[in-house]
Amino acid sequence: MAEPTPPLHPEVAALAGLLGTWRGEGAGEYPTIASFGYGTEVRFWHTGKPFLAYAQRTWSLDDGRPLHTETGYWRPKPGGVVEVVLSNPNGIAEVLEGQVDGGRIELDTTTVATTSTAKEVTALRRRYQLDGDTLAYTLAMAAVGQPLQHHLSARLHRAG
Amino acid sequence: MAEPTPPLHPEVAALAGLLGTWRGEGAGEYPTIASFGYGTEVRFWHTGKPFLAYAQRTWSLDDGRPLHTETGYWRPKPGGVVEVVLSNPNGIAEVLEGQVDGGRIELDTTTVATTSTAKEVTALRRRYQLDGDTLAYTLAMAAVGQPLQHHLSARLHRAG
Repeated sequence: MAEPTPPLHPEVAALAGLLGTWRGEGAGEYPTIASFGYGTEVRFWHTGKPFLAYAQRTWSLDDGRPLHTETGYWRPKPGGVVEVVLSNPNGIAEVLEGQVDGGRIELDTTTVATTSTAKEVTALRRRYQLDGDTLAYTLAMAAVGQPLQHHLSARLHRAG
Repeated sequence: MAEPTPPLHPEVAALAGLLGTWRGEGAGEYPTIASFGYGTEVRFWHTGKPFLAYAQRTWSLDDGRPLHTETGYWRPKPGGVVEVVLSNPNGIAEVLEGQVDGGRIELDTTTVATTSTAKEVTALRRRYQLDGDTLAYTLAMAAVGQPLQHHLSARLHRAG
């Protein structure tokens, strides 16, 4: 079932710099938890259709055990608009919308939908900065009664 | 970064029969489109945590071109409850909840969240039937003004 990768869909051009595998390290903090460091791998790939597939996984820097993972799709639209849908295994689905401007991508949730047993998360703000072979991101979160505030930052380098 | 697969988390036991790669064929219909056949591959895998990762991709039986894809996580909970979050590249995020009873899994959306440019989808009903090395599913959908009704059915066999 291994088809050759088809040409990139032209609507995806504004996000083409993201394609590939990125690895690096990040740091997390939130009023309700102990601060922590983590390893992270982000992958963007495509199938010739007008979206990018996306997956991130993170792991403990201590022992390599898996921490978080998330997966979804990025949909560039005319005028620099980017629409994103993401699934998180903690029972949280995100719909985000925002803008790409050169290497800067700003996304904010328009909907956060959760399963019955998921932790309460009401808003997420994701910011990405692409500079050649370096990809940095930050994530702010409103959750468990706390207002929107910084939660994660990471810096990754192109690994493939 | 290729870690060995850790032991299955005990909370996932009720869904363990799904783990692996499944391939087969399906058929789709809806009042607003021409009926169609498709090839399908479904994968379930785990990382030792209390959820299964899930991905499906489908392709045209004519020329193998990619059609749909979707990805997300399945979260078994006590009492046979299953919570699922799914992302679709057409800009649709699904939160589903339901039950697993032996090889039968019944899931209905509690939330369908869409991006601004996505097609209107208001409800999805997913049914799975696992019998050893055969996995069948049906999907009913309420979309573009149509009431909830049959959309997809597929039958897959264990491929790995």
